[in-house]
Amino acid sequence: MIQISVIGSGNVAHHLIQAFSKTAEIELVQVVARKAASVADVMTSDKIITDIRELKPVDLVIIAVTDDAIAEVSRQIPFLNQLVVHTSGTKPITILDNKNRKGVFYPLQTFSKSAAINFKSVPLCLEAQNDNDFHILETVAKSISDSVYKISSEQRKALHVAAVFVCNFVNHLYQIGNDICNENQLDFDILKPLIQETAQKIMTLSPTEAQTGPARRGDSETINTHLSFLTNDNQKEIYKLLTKSILENGKKL
Amino acid sequence: MIQISVIGSGNVAHHLIQAFSKTAEIELVQVVARKAASVADVMTSDKIITDIRELKPVDLVIIAVTDDAIAEVSRQIPFLNQLVVHTSGTKPITILDNKNRKGVFYPLQTFSKSAAINFKSVPLCLEAQNDNDFHILETVAKSISDSVYKISSEQRKALHVAAVFVCNFVNHLYQIGNDICNENQLDFDILKPLIQETAQKIMTLSPTEAQTGPARRGDSETINTHLSFLTNDNQKEIYKLLTKSILENGKKL
Repeated sequence: MIQISVIGSGNVAHHLIQAFSKTAEIELVQVVARKAASVADVMTSDKIITDIRELKPVDLVIIAVTDDAIAEVSRQIPFLNQLVVHTSGTKPITILDNKNRKGVFYPLQTFSKSAAINFKSVPLCLEAQNDNDFHILETVAKSISDSVYKISSEQRKALHVAAVFVCNFVNHLYQIGNDICNENQLDFDILKPLIQETAQKIMTLSPTEAQTGPARRGDSETINTHLSFLTNDNQKEIYKLLTKSILENGKKL
Repeated sequence: MIQISVIGSGNVAHHLIQAFSKTAEIELVQVVARKAASVADVMTSDKIITDIRELKPVDLVIIAVTDDAIAEVSRQIPFLNQLVVHTSGTKPITILDNKNRKGVFYPLQTFSKSAAINFKSVPLCLEAQNDNDFHILETVAKSISDSVYKISSEQRKALHVAAVFVCNFVNHLYQIGNDICNENQLDFDILKPLIQETAQKIMTLSPTEAQTGPARRGDSETINTHLSFLTNDNQKEIYKLLTKSILENGKKL
């Protein structure tokens, strides 16, 4: 049985607490939350503490707070030489305070409190400073996920940038699709099967093979029709830049 | 039993022929393909013709050819006053020749020959010039899909532009994610659960609710870290523009 405590009460903390609670190999010892109420839905009240100074040493402490708070929180931990990890996609392992052993436990997924997640399919990107600590992280990770990777701080930075493109930016394109529908009295639902299929295709085809559309075909007539249809400057600018990028990509093939 | 003939041998023609072949209410009479071999996998050879002049009048002729060829193909049809539709997302109904009754039968989906499609979930966007013809299209559409919409030529244009954003451009962002992975010795597979979850979220949350990431949080430190990480000018330009767009969108909320 591995003993774990979690610091934080945001989306990542919530989903980790829920995943650990379902796992026989893990004992969730304490959760540190500035407001106890914020994790009361996923944790029994006797295990929630609001003062980090009450944190007890365990096999693994997971700091799941905003990036900017990681360094300070790691300094406030009231003990030494324990394994302490953060869950950030962008911060290096070195941001953690030297008084404890360091690691990273980064779940590469988009979390919303309202959307349930099957943690088994969430890739966990692990980093530690020695094999022994890595083994602890790996054991914990494999107890909640089928998808566990050893990723260096530099690779994790690349992965986080890539994730911004395929998740945050993709969702913003959904937003623009939604806006265009609204402006033309169209139900956004019409686009949902296309959105699903576009994501599904990537499971079996490479993005290059899966690319379709006027830019891929070099169909400048349709591109011009679309550009003259768009009246919103921002949408137009995005259309132009992504079309140019697809055209240039096509030339490289 | 509604009699249908299909002109074309591309991805849309292929998927339509396959869907109609499985439907008891539809009799697929002829398929016109310049090269008979190109549809031999989905149609018995006695029904494939290579010369459009051999086309016989039926209840519905579906022209599923590239946008640029629609007008000319519709002129070559060797009979009058029948219902003839095209499957284009961009071309207006009026592009069809006046000698036959006109309509549009636009499947809003991304088709690759290699990726199987469950046609039941493909939205079909229909347009006709009178109620009787619309009824024929609706009957045909409902025989192969659970998702049938009446969409004007102007709305269809908007829908096609929106589809470019949520499908073609989204796939290009997958491509960039893939490129960043390759450049950093990372397996693109790590990103696939995130891609799936991002598409899945949109089924229950609005794009505004589903938006996450540094731009949504106004986290300029992470944004700057990402921009200095990106060395490819094209990737950098796309990152900047989409980040700016998300930031501006956030201000409107």
